[in-house]
Amino acid sequence: MLVLAERDLTGLISPLETIAAVEAALRAQASGALAAPQRLHLDWDDNSLLTMPAAAAGGVGVKVVSVVPGNKDRHLPVTSGVMILNDRNTGAPLALLNAAALTAQRTGAVGALGAKYLSPAQTASVGIIGCGVQGAWQAIYTCAVRPIEEVFAYARSQAAFDRFAATVGRHAPGVRITACGSVRALLDRTDLVIAATTSTEPVLPDEPALLQNKHFISVGSFRPAMQELPDSIYRLAGSLAVDSEHARHEAGDVINALRRNILSDGNVFSIAECVTGERDIDVARTTVYKTVGSAIYDLFVAFELYAAARRRGLGREVTL
Amino acid sequence: MLVLAERDLTGLISPLETIAAVEAALRAQASGALAAPQRLHLDWDDNSLLTMPAAAAGGVGVKVVSVVPGNKDRHLPVTSGVMILNDRNTGAPLALLNAAALTAQRTGAVGALGAKYLSPAQTASVGIIGCGVQGAWQAIYTCAVRPIEEVFAYARSQAAFDRFAATVGRHAPGVRITACGSVRALLDRTDLVIAATTSTEPVLPDEPALLQNKHFISVGSFRPAMQELPDSIYRLAGSLAVDSEHARHEAGDVINALRRNILSDGNVFSIAECVTGERDIDVARTTVYKTVGSAIYDLFVAFELYAAARRRGLGREVTL
Repeated sequence: MLVLAERDLTGLISPLETIAAVEAALRAQASGALAAPQRLHLDWDDNSLLTMPAAAAGGVGVKVVSVVPGNKDRHLPVTSGVMILNDRNTGAPLALLNAAALTAQRTGAVGALGAKYLSPAQTASVGIIGCGVQGAWQAIYTCAVRPIEEVFAYARSQAAFDRFAATVGRHAPGVRITACGSVRALLDRTDLVIAATTSTEPVLPDEPALLQNKHFISVGSFRPAMQELPDSIYRLAGSLAVDSEHARHEAGDVINALRRNILSDGNVFSIAECVTGERDIDVARTTVYKTVGSAIYDLFVAFELYAAARRRGLGREVTL
Repeated sequence: MLVLAERDLTGLISPLETIAAVEAALRAQASGALAAPQRLHLDWDDNSLLTMPAAAAGGVGVKVVSVVPGNKDRHLPVTSGVMILNDRNTGAPLALLNAAALTAQRTGAVGALGAKYLSPAQTASVGIIGCGVQGAWQAIYTCAVRPIEEVFAYARSQAAFDRFAATVGRHAPGVRITACGSVRALLDRTDLVIAATTSTEPVLPDEPALLQNKHFISVGSFRPAMQELPDSIYRLAGSLAVDSEHARHEAGDVINALRRNILSDGNVFSIAECVTGERDIDVARTTVYKTVGSAIYDLFVAFELYAAARRRGLGREVTL
């Protein structure tokens, strides 16, 4: 069994390769060549263990991550875990991957589908609200699919911005990184906005004049009680792309838009329809995309990482 | 993260320590200090991936095993996989264990509860029907809880018997191991009978006179379509001990006894009632025990193995 640590996985495949893996997952799902049951929650104290299995033509795997909110006070990551890959034919365990490194890259890639399919091709800037690890990867992956010259960032603190700028600068060299003092200032300067927060309240003003004909991606708000984007965005867009059907039940952004009749069930569509070319989007108008992640993306990206590690002789072989 | 291979785990803790861990799991469950959701099945082709999480005071973990029937033709084990242990406080992965070595030992221990609580204290022999890996471990663990002098075995082939005798001889030295030419011959010579087969048909004759006042343990028949023990046994016993509530839905032996009104729901009780001393059993009469396994046993035995490995400096530390 090959053990792949964070240092093996980070930057092992390019953003474009990761995005291609995520698109392959969506195509496999659209053609029915994929199995992924609803993920399983095990709860104890205030914590959860999530197990997310998936099977496809290339292999089988399960991601197991813990979510421990109290880790914030311990200066430890709130989520940690592993992804196990199994041989599809024999079922034997093939590899164990650091889940944080995998998740950062696949979430960056899943978010970048929003820029790739729901923003104009010449988009030269992006605004990031929420400058944690996810925010940085969103910026990096957006640079892979659009000719981004400048990244605008709204961070809670100078320290957060500095870490963000360092990470983005390392993986997307040559791009200007500029702090914005407010979300309004950020909206003034760019038409493509990505929210990567854990906010329960919308992080943008609910003012149609400021939002119209812009493009919004929400990668935070993974619980029913969370909403990152204001109602006006859903009203202006008239439809909403999602990366997974689970978004309808898991994310407050989708749940509230449906419950308040801002959108109907039929207005919520899978980003897979853009990937397969079934649906054309008018990117001159307001667009919005909500991602919650899915085991199928983890599986496809993990197998790409595993194949690349094998080619380059990375990782540590252990006997079980 | 500590990687514990099969060679690290086999024989690392004694059968009595393993049985104590299994009893601790049952006590924790009886006191409500334990969470274990229904296990999750992911199916592809004729294969399955089972994920079995559990949380208790000592820690959190999940066993992930694949079941690939076609492996028989490849001379590979039908099931293979890993158990991941996580720190209860931080959620961080602590250890990765070979699942086959863990499962063999915990299944031996869970089965041995039948001998410990449902057979007379002076029982000096045991009969094993089905001489695979599980059959061997059942014999070994029974020797730990009863003063066994002779093991009678009914195997499908001389080769299977030879492998069985070698394994039992290694782990239970000084015990006589005798092959029986038929199940009737085995029933003639012992009062404690353990079936460890994958049979869909009862492996014992349905004749009350041959079965009365004996003690039966079924560790095979893990699917609704399987039944190892004949109806007479359930009729003679009048009640049935199980190791897990899942047995009522998963094992043909239990499902059929209930459906045919040989037993009522109230006659099926948890072996935990014997462990905690709530229930007294008349071991002069026919008794029967059905095990299907449970994530809680894996969790408790895995943490015992992990602690012993740490004490003895076994395993291989890998950075994630």
